[in-house]
Amino acid sequence: MGIIVQKFGGTSVATVEKILNVADRVLDERKRGNNVVVVVSAMGKSTDELISLAKQVSTKPSKRELDMLVTTGEQVTIALLAMALHEKGHDAVSMTGWQAGVETEPIHGSARILNIDTDQINRAIREGKIVIVAGFQGITEDGEITTLGRGGSDTSAVALAAALGADRCDIYTDVTGVYTADPRYIPSARQLSTISYDEMLELANLGAGVLHPRSVEFAKNYQIPLVVRSSTEKVEGTYVLEETIMEENLVVRGVAFEKDITKLTVYGLSNEIASLSSVFTPLAKNNVNVDIIIQNASDQNLNTLSFSIKTDELQEALQVLEEHKESIGYDHIEYESGLAKVSIVGSGMISNPGVAAQMFASLAEKDIFVKMVSTSEIKVSAVVNEDQMLKAAEILHDVFGLSKVEQEVSVAK
Amino acid sequence: MGIIVQKFGGTSVATVEKILNVADRVLDERKRGNNVVVVVSAMGKSTDELISLAKQVSTKPSKRELDMLVTTGEQVTIALLAMALHEKGHDAVSMTGWQAGVETEPIHGSARILNIDTDQINRAIREGKIVIVAGFQGITEDGEITTLGRGGSDTSAVALAAALGADRCDIYTDVTGVYTADPRYIPSARQLSTISYDEMLELANLGAGVLHPRSVEFAKNYQIPLVVRSSTEKVEGTYVLEETIMEENLVVRGVAFEKDITKLTVYGLSNEIASLSSVFTPLAKNNVNVDIIIQNASDQNLNTLSFSIKTDELQEALQVLEEHKESIGYDHIEYESGLAKVSIVGSGMISNPGVAAQMFASLAEKDIFVKMVSTSEIKVSAVVNEDQMLKAAEILHDVFGLSKVEQEVSVAK
Repeated sequence: MGIIVQKFGGTSVATVEKILNVADRVLDERKRGNNVVVVVSAMGKSTDELISLAKQVSTKPSKRELDMLVTTGEQVTIALLAMALHEKGHDAVSMTGWQAGVETEPIHGSARILNIDTDQINRAIREGKIVIVAGFQGITEDGEITTLGRGGSDTSAVALAAALGADRCDIYTDVTGVYTADPRYIPSARQLSTISYDEMLELANLGAGVLHPRSVEFAKNYQIPLVVRSSTEKVEGTYVLEETIMEENLVVRGVAFEKDITKLTVYGLSNEIASLSSVFTPLAKNNVNVDIIIQNASDQNLNTLSFSIKTDELQEALQVLEEHKESIGYDHIEYESGLAKVSIVGSGMISNPGVAAQMFASLAEKDIFVKMVSTSEIKVSAVVNEDQMLKAAEILHDVFGLSKVEQEVSVAK
Repeated sequence: MGIIVQKFGGTSVATVEKILNVADRVLDERKRGNNVVVVVSAMGKSTDELISLAKQVSTKPSKRELDMLVTTGEQVTIALLAMALHEKGHDAVSMTGWQAGVETEPIHGSARILNIDTDQINRAIREGKIVIVAGFQGITEDGEITTLGRGGSDTSAVALAAALGADRCDIYTDVTGVYTADPRYIPSARQLSTISYDEMLELANLGAGVLHPRSVEFAKNYQIPLVVRSSTEKVEGTYVLEETIMEENLVVRGVAFEKDITKLTVYGLSNEIASLSSVFTPLAKNNVNVDIIIQNASDQNLNTLSFSIKTDELQEALQVLEEHKESIGYDHIEYESGLAKVSIVGSGMISNPGVAAQMFASLAEKDIFVKMVSTSEIKVSAVVNEDQMLKAAEILHDVFGLSKVEQEVSVAK
């Protein structure tokens, strides 16, 4: 018997009825002859409700006590799911993060998993039990309860799959799989049957939001096959695998887009090597996430530096830069909001030069002006005006053949 | 600096506002120069709500998973109270039952505390922190989460007070103290300034309901002074102490009453020594609580046995006795519902013979017929018709001088 780890997110366990439905999903897998370890999140909006309680008590609740508070959410779900499985006649046992041996760094709110001591889980599996583990949570060496941050239940599931040597980690969600683009906005988007870890990682980082990036990284490092699938519809999901074992490929496999981007430009920086660091270190310390960076070294004495951030971090960014004006040494700052980022992702780009050029040409042809660009080996991102975002995404989705009926371009390995 | 343990029940922490009020109570004690360890219950009706969720999932939820589920209730409260104390500028740390070192028997739903490893709490106290512990919960040797049963937070508080060598354990509640009778029914009832452990134990067992009996036992065993006091009104509470250090005494210190009592009589029992055991063992196994027992040994061959139970356990009792008719060996059973129990409690009864006689005479004088009697060294209980219960309680409250303005009868020690 192999081990399958299943993960069900908050929307999949939002009500008692949905928990009973999840129990059926678990038993389906069990009936296929597998041992099952289930990782669940808190029910629906319960984490948000707990945080709202905290905010009523304290303007700035301590992260340790927030972890203490919100970890009750998953604990409720594991108990109810165990009861649901009992009710359906199967032996099952719930475990909190600490009972399941999930050891993390001593950081509250966003701890990383250091180790999983699988003794308790393995013992329960040997006793024929379905094991239900509270996602998103762990324990430090000192016995403090920690959380892995938002999306952490994905990470819990993949880390458990790695520690248990599971055959597969199934991520059940409210979509049926990974799409070539967000189908809510791009009607011609279609579901992919497979995608590589690296591509998924770029898409997750780009805000495609199906999987938490850390969980994909973990799966890649330990070569755990992931499957993104629907918790309500019984249809095939999308396999996330290492490139080499994927049977099919497209040069571009997905188009992602994200609005509310602001471009900041710092003028008159003294031409010193330390400039980049003096700008980005205080921003990072104040949790302003900088995305694309463009440095225009000029032949004059003074440089210009542009970078993009999320618009909701603009005020914070401006304040930080103002506070550090002297140490950075710049003349003035300009910014442009109302921007968006459109990206194409695909492993095939490595062996197909000219993809970026084709992207820019296609956008230019339709009068879409690209304001910033950033590239990786398997990704090209372009910053455009927000009102042109969907148009740009549709063009790229068509140009790179994603809108066609499944008829993928095979790429030599 | 001494250590004071404070316990706040569910109604005292039912809302965010009430939790902030509790924080003030904690800080009041802190400002008096004491180290404070606070034990809290789940907010208001949250335990009932969790149990209702469980009942929606499963007709008979497993006790282990129920413990997993309901212990989240106290965990929410401890986190919020810690945040409230932080907000008011004080250092505080919350601890679940297992973090606080509360070790229990491996029994779910009604475990007894075996030991408390106070290392973590003492360390936090040394660091100047107010420690907030989740009541009602503990952990087994194997790392399983257990609960102490309803009213268990009182027990948690007293056990912690004993383990920490606390100077006092304050039980904050929605009444101002212990009364000579339930003031909702006996308007002339008044609050006692002191009461002995033994008297409190009889009153708690009699359903006076202010303190959980196990917590009083614990306090008596470890000689921890208890104070029952109001969480909302800043008034003196009632001290629960060992007799010898009480300054004042009354022969009778309290009148308790309880309705919904049924008297069961088993006729035609074969005159064997094993009869009592053969009747009460199966009842106990089926959780039927038997209170007063009267055995009428007759000069004939067959005996009659009467006992009282709570009326809501009548069907269960009749079924159990029917199932065991052969092994018990009886002729038939009769029962009488609509009864009530009225009790007088007072340590002074030991040195004042004739109290029971005075009780019966006073009741007879007012035409109240006593159907069953049970006595202990410091208690006399009489079973009467339910519709005469309050009348009987009022008569006894008057006869034994409890209705008078505080002017207590001193008893020689």
